[in-house]
Amino acid sequence: MYVLVNDSIISQEEATLKITDLSIQRGYGIFDFLKTVAGKPVFLEDHLDRFYSSAEQMRLPVKLSRNDLTAQITALLDKNKLSDSGVRITLTGGYSPDGFNIASSSNIIITQQEFEVNRDFEKSIHLMTYDYQRQFALAKTLDYLKAIWLQPVLKEAGADDILYHDNGMLRECPRANFFLINEKDEILTSKTNILKGVTRKHILQLKTGNFKIEERELTMDDLRHAKEAFISSTTKNILPVTKVDGRVLGDGTPGPVTRALMAEFDQYVYG
Amino acid sequence: MYVLVNDSIISQEEATLKITDLSIQRGYGIFDFLKTVAGKPVFLEDHLDRFYSSAEQMRLPVKLSRNDLTAQITALLDKNKLSDSGVRITLTGGYSPDGFNIASSSNIIITQQEFEVNRDFEKSIHLMTYDYQRQFALAKTLDYLKAIWLQPVLKEAGADDILYHDNGMLRECPRANFFLINEKDEILTSKTNILKGVTRKHILQLKTGNFKIEERELTMDDLRHAKEAFISSTTKNILPVTKVDGRVLGDGTPGPVTRALMAEFDQYVYG
Repeated sequence: MYVLVNDSIISQEEATLKITDLSIQRGYGIFDFLKTVAGKPVFLEDHLDRFYSSAEQMRLPVKLSRNDLTAQITALLDKNKLSDSGVRITLTGGYSPDGFNIASSSNIIITQQEFEVNRDFEKSIHLMTYDYQRQFALAKTLDYLKAIWLQPVLKEAGADDILYHDNGMLRECPRANFFLINEKDEILTSKTNILKGVTRKHILQLKTGNFKIEERELTMDDLRHAKEAFISSTTKNILPVTKVDGRVLGDGTPGPVTRALMAEFDQYVYG
Repeated sequence: MYVLVNDSIISQEEATLKITDLSIQRGYGIFDFLKTVAGKPVFLEDHLDRFYSSAEQMRLPVKLSRNDLTAQITALLDKNKLSDSGVRITLTGGYSPDGFNIASSSNIIITQQEFEVNRDFEKSIHLMTYDYQRQFALAKTLDYLKAIWLQPVLKEAGADDILYHDNGMLRECPRANFFLINEKDEILTSKTNILKGVTRKHILQLKTGNFKIEERELTMDDLRHAKEAFISSTTKNILPVTKVDGRVLGDGTPGPVTRALMAEFDQYVYG
């Protein structure tokens, strides 16, 4: 597999950063992740919007214009010739002379891997809630300390993923947004202090049936009364949640509202 | 300058990590930093204690035994032959196959740089307070997102460093501990949810004059009534603070209790 490191296409095995990079020194950087289907990037402009927004929020300079970055992604896709894949664009604080301040030139890495989204509508996952608020909630930073640290706790609990809440206010999963369907069949997702997912954005624009779909402040109490739930992300599209903290939602299988949404979103992405 | 990367002594310019390292992918790792004076490590055992403690807290495997790690540090010092220096030991999540879970083998990097602690007792700094609680407070992780992000804010405020408080409870500076001297001439430092500094530990053992020196829960109100203040770290020893959020402490120069402590600590380290 080929990757791009600061404008050079090289083999992934040869791709390195010097140890003075601010990601290695201080965990400082941002990234974005998009997928390709049949060789074409999906929602590319949304991901580029968020990439540049994350960089700006974290005060990281990006030397590539949007057009140049798009051209580099295209060049990498042309080189690797994968059909379904994930593409990651990482921007770090660069080679910092003092190991603390952001360098005048950041480092940019673009990688690609084979990857196909699960489209089996019967699959579902179990979540475990955890009290935590991501730092710099609106930026996709490299900070996954808590999520990685929690992996053994998650396995111990027999859950598949974590749902963060901030003192009872529902937030998001480490790498996905969270939606619930309440007793009025409203499809709701947390509104504030979360990373605004690209998949989430497109789900909010769907007009499935006559369901109301909207952002709202949600609490652990809303979660306890939810009839259905699902998570959304670039790598998962819509993935049903059938258990949270050991409590089964509905009859323990993906519910009717989630199924209707999945069918429509699948059509929306894959045509 | 020579550095050690996974058991190999190489030139710093050649020192790299592959881009699959979990520090580059997810900001995941820990480190410690010690100094040498006249070629000898200062408080080495304390730093090794904390290094292994940080690794354990963050679930990072360390393949080197304490004896082997000490031997590697010694080998690097022998190679670089610096008198006064800083030595950084960094441990990352390793080359993670999935870019998310900790690898079975972590990466370890030891670097050294010329460095001499300021021993001019007239120097002092200004602090700016900021509401923030470090994640994994007791571990020296790579997470310096907030501190680095705040650097322009700090410059704008005309301050030299940040003092974190958690909703009014005093904590620490990003790379130093904080002490204040109250109206009873008690020398106090925050007790909980902070990184326990090695310099801080040794200051707490001093018997300067008949001053009481101890850990205590401290608030912004204690800060407002402080007569003197200072920060402590491996790179700074004791450094007086003469202004916080624009308020001058005492007469704006290092106070008598701080000076007494500095003299004793200087003797303690440099003999």
